[in-house]
Amino acid sequence: MAQKPSIPKGTRDFTPSEVIKRNYIFDIVKKHFQTFGFQPIETPSFENSDTLMGKYGDEGDRLIFKILNSGDYLNKVDYATYSSKNSNALTSKISEKALRYDLTVPFARYVVMHQNEIDFPFKRYQIQPVWRADRPQKGRFREFFQCDADVVGSDSLLQEIELVQLYDAVFTDLKLEGVNIKLNNRKILSGIAEVIGAQDLLIDFTVALDKLDKIGEEGVKKEMAERGLTPEAIAKVEPLFSLSGSNLEQLQALRDLLKDSETGSKGVEELTYIVSTLEELGLQSAKFSIDVTLARGLNYYTGAIFEVGAPEGVKMGSIGGGGRYDDLTGIFGLKDVSGVGISFGLDRIYLVLEELGLFPESIDQSLQVLCLNFGDKEALASLKLVSALRKNGVKSDVYPSNAKINKQFKYANNRNVPYVISIGENELAENAFVVKHMESGEQQTYALDAVLDFVAKL
Amino acid sequence: MAQKPSIPKGTRDFTPSEVIKRNYIFDIVKKHFQTFGFQPIETPSFENSDTLMGKYGDEGDRLIFKILNSGDYLNKVDYATYSSKNSNALTSKISEKALRYDLTVPFARYVVMHQNEIDFPFKRYQIQPVWRADRPQKGRFREFFQCDADVVGSDSLLQEIELVQLYDAVFTDLKLEGVNIKLNNRKILSGIAEVIGAQDLLIDFTVALDKLDKIGEEGVKKEMAERGLTPEAIAKVEPLFSLSGSNLEQLQALRDLLKDSETGSKGVEELTYIVSTLEELGLQSAKFSIDVTLARGLNYYTGAIFEVGAPEGVKMGSIGGGGRYDDLTGIFGLKDVSGVGISFGLDRIYLVLEELGLFPESIDQSLQVLCLNFGDKEALASLKLVSALRKNGVKSDVYPSNAKINKQFKYANNRNVPYVISIGENELAENAFVVKHMESGEQQTYALDAVLDFVAKL
Repeated sequence: MAQKPSIPKGTRDFTPSEVIKRNYIFDIVKKHFQTFGFQPIETPSFENSDTLMGKYGDEGDRLIFKILNSGDYLNKVDYATYSSKNSNALTSKISEKALRYDLTVPFARYVVMHQNEIDFPFKRYQIQPVWRADRPQKGRFREFFQCDADVVGSDSLLQEIELVQLYDAVFTDLKLEGVNIKLNNRKILSGIAEVIGAQDLLIDFTVALDKLDKIGEEGVKKEMAERGLTPEAIAKVEPLFSLSGSNLEQLQALRDLLKDSETGSKGVEELTYIVSTLEELGLQSAKFSIDVTLARGLNYYTGAIFEVGAPEGVKMGSIGGGGRYDDLTGIFGLKDVSGVGISFGLDRIYLVLEELGLFPESIDQSLQVLCLNFGDKEALASLKLVSALRKNGVKSDVYPSNAKINKQFKYANNRNVPYVISIGENELAENAFVVKHMESGEQQTYALDAVLDFVAKL
Repeated sequence: MAQKPSIPKGTRDFTPSEVIKRNYIFDIVKKHFQTFGFQPIETPSFENSDTLMGKYGDEGDRLIFKILNSGDYLNKVDYATYSSKNSNALTSKISEKALRYDLTVPFARYVVMHQNEIDFPFKRYQIQPVWRADRPQKGRFREFFQCDADVVGSDSLLQEIELVQLYDAVFTDLKLEGVNIKLNNRKILSGIAEVIGAQDLLIDFTVALDKLDKIGEEGVKKEMAERGLTPEAIAKVEPLFSLSGSNLEQLQALRDLLKDSETGSKGVEELTYIVSTLEELGLQSAKFSIDVTLARGLNYYTGAIFEVGAPEGVKMGSIGGGGRYDDLTGIFGLKDVSGVGISFGLDRIYLVLEELGLFPESIDQSLQVLCLNFGDKEALASLKLVSALRKNGVKSDVYPSNAKINKQFKYANNRNVPYVISIGENELAENAFVVKHMESGEQQTYALDAVLDFVAKL
C-alpha cells in the first residue's frame, strides 16, 4: 500500500538550491581552515554509549539519541530489570550505541586513541552532523551540522590570536562584513568573583552578568541579589557596568579592579596581549571588542572566551563561539592537553546571508547551457556538443526527449538556465549551432567545430 | 574515571590524510555530476521507520539500525506486548525512527514529497553516509558513504548513454584509466528465460548465469540443473557462453537468439542504440562491453543494467553499478516515474587509487609553509608574514612556541611541509625572511615586503 510519506520532526530535506548555498558556506570555511593549517578529521556518526553518556550533564544524557541493539536484543535482559519496566534501567541493556551529540567529545576520544600518530600541536577541523532529541522549534533542529576548528597541545596565546583572524578571514570572504567578535577570559570572571568575595557563587554571578544585554543593569543586580550575592559584593561589581573607552582603556580599568587577584590579573594580562597583537595586525572587516559579561559554557572554558555576533542591524543570536579549555582529553585518560577552539553556526550564518542577500547571484545557476532536442539525429549532434562543453567544465545538458519546444523552454526557465542552444535540421545541415541568451533574447550562431569560441564567452 | 576509549565495530575514524584523499575523490565525482547537469539534495540521517521498513526484504529490515524513542518510552507499551518479551514485537512500540539504509528509498520519498516543486526530468546526486547492521568484515562497514546519481521522469535512452559517459569522465579525471563498463538489459534476460521456456525460473536462471566468471560454464550448467531448469532449456542457453566478437556482433547473435521474444527483442534494440551511440561518441579512457551474465539486483532493474570493473590486473569487485527501474516512487503513491541511476563505490575506488598510486603526490601536503618561532617579537613578524601568505591562499602556519629549533623542524618534517621560513633576530633587523626548501636544502632570502615574490614561486 502506498503511504503518504513524511520525515521525522526536527529533521530537514535540503533541496538543490539549499545544498548549493550550504556548500558555498562550507567551502569558504574549509578553505580558510586549510590556509590556517587545520587538518580535517571525521569520526563515526555513532559512538559507544559510554563514550558519550555523562559528558553533557543529565539534560544532555536525556537528549542523546540511543540506537537499539540489533537482533533479539531482549534475550540478554535479566528478569529483574525487565520486570521493573523502567525505561532508564532498560536502555543500558538494550542499547550500546548512541548518535554523536557534538563534535568535541568525539574529538577528545579521537585524540586519545590516535595520540601516538598525531603531531602536536594538532590543529583539526571537523564538519559533520550531530543529533539532539531536543524539542524542535524555529531554528532548532534534531539534526544539524557543527563546524569546529580546534588546536590541542599548545597553550600559546598565538592560537587565540589566529582564531580571531580566522573568523575575520571567513566572514570577510563570505562578504559578511562588520561581524562583532567579543572577547573575554574566564580568569577575569574568576578574578571578579574573587575580589567581590563571591568565589562560591561564581556560576550564579556570571549567569546573572551574562544577561546584561537582555535585562539591563538593574535587572542584573536584582538577579544577583536573588542568587545570594551580598549588597557589598553587588556594589563592588558596579564598575563593570560602566566600562567604557577603547579596548585597552577598558583593560586598564579591569587591571585596577583586579589588582589584588592573581588569577584576575593573569586574565587581564592574557587578554591585553591578544587585544594589542590583534590591533597591531589589524583585521580585514570584523570588529572585536572586550565583553566581560560574556560567559558561554563557563564550566567548560578556562581561558579565552569568544563569541561572534551578526553585523549591526541583523537580529540573530551568536553566529559563532569558542574558547580555551585546559583538560579536553582528561575524561579519556590523557592529562594536560590544553585546547582552544571555535565553531561556526552554519544554520544562522545561512539565514543571515539570505537576509542580507549575500549569496552570489550565479549560485542558482546549476545548469549553464541546455541544448534543445529536435529528434534523434539532432540530439546526437547536441550530445557531441554537450560532451565538449562538459570537458571544458561547463554545466550543460541535452533535453532528453523531443518534447514540444515550449515545454523544453519552460524547463530551461524553471532551472534558470542562461543559455539555450538549438541544433535543428537547418543547423545540422550547416554544421552550426545557435545560442540564445535567455535574459537578453540575443541569438548568435557558431560553427559546430568552434565550441571553444562559445566557451570563451561564458 | 578515565575510560579507555574505543569506537563501535564496523565504524571508522578518518585521519587527516584519509579525509583529504576521500574528499579528493568526492570533489572529482561532484564536479562531473555538476557538469552533467545533476543537482545535489540531502535527506535526514534518520527516517520514520515506516518509510524504510519493508523496502529491502526481511534481511534488509533486520539490518536497519533502529533509534530508541526518547523519554519514558516504555510508558506507551501495552501490557500484552511487553509481557510477551518479544524483541520484534517490542521494537515497533519503542522505536519510531531508523537510520538511512541506502539513498534510493529516501530519494523516492523526497521525490514524492517535493513533486510539485521539482522540474522533471530531475537529475539529482546525493553523497551521504548510510548505516547497516551487517556483520563487519574486511572492506564491509556499518557506516559508509554512498554516492548516487539518478534521473527520474525521463525514459529516454539518452540518459543511459550519458551515465556511461559520466563514469568515463569521472574515472578519466581520477586517472583510473581502463575501467571496464559492463552493460546488459533486464529485458534481454527476461527474453532468454522466455525463449528457453523458463519464465518461472527467471531469478534462478539469472542467479546461476551471473556466476559464470566464478564457476565457469560447467558450473553454471550444473547450478541451473539444480535450480530446476530442464536439460532442453540448458541446451538452448548454450550460445550465451560462446558469444564473441565485437559488441555489435554479439548483439546480432542475441537478436537471432531472441527473435521470437518481443521483450527480448526490445532489450536487444535498446542495447544496440546505446552501444552504437557510445561508439559514435567515443569514450576518453574507459572500455565498455556487453555482458549478458550481468544481473545485479534483478528484481529491481527493468531496463539497462550497468557495472564497472576495476582496470585489468586489479583484484577488486565492482567499483560502480546501476540501472533503470520503472517504478521508483510507486511505494509512496506516485506512479509511472521511470528512473535510471548509477553509483560510485567510494571505499573500493579509494583502495584501487591507493594500490595504483594514483592520488596526487601533493595530496599529503596539508601545510605548505611553516614559520619557525624564535620568540615573541620575531613571532609577531612571522604572524604578519603568514597572514599575507594566507590571504594569498597559501596553507601556512607559525610554530606556536619558541621550542627548540630541532623540535620545530621535526614537526615540519612530520607534517611533510615543503618550505620552512625563518625570521630570527638578524632577519628582523634586516626586514627579511629566509626560505628553506626542505627537499633540496636550498635557502633563499626575501625582503619582508616582497611576500608575493615568494608566493609566485610556489
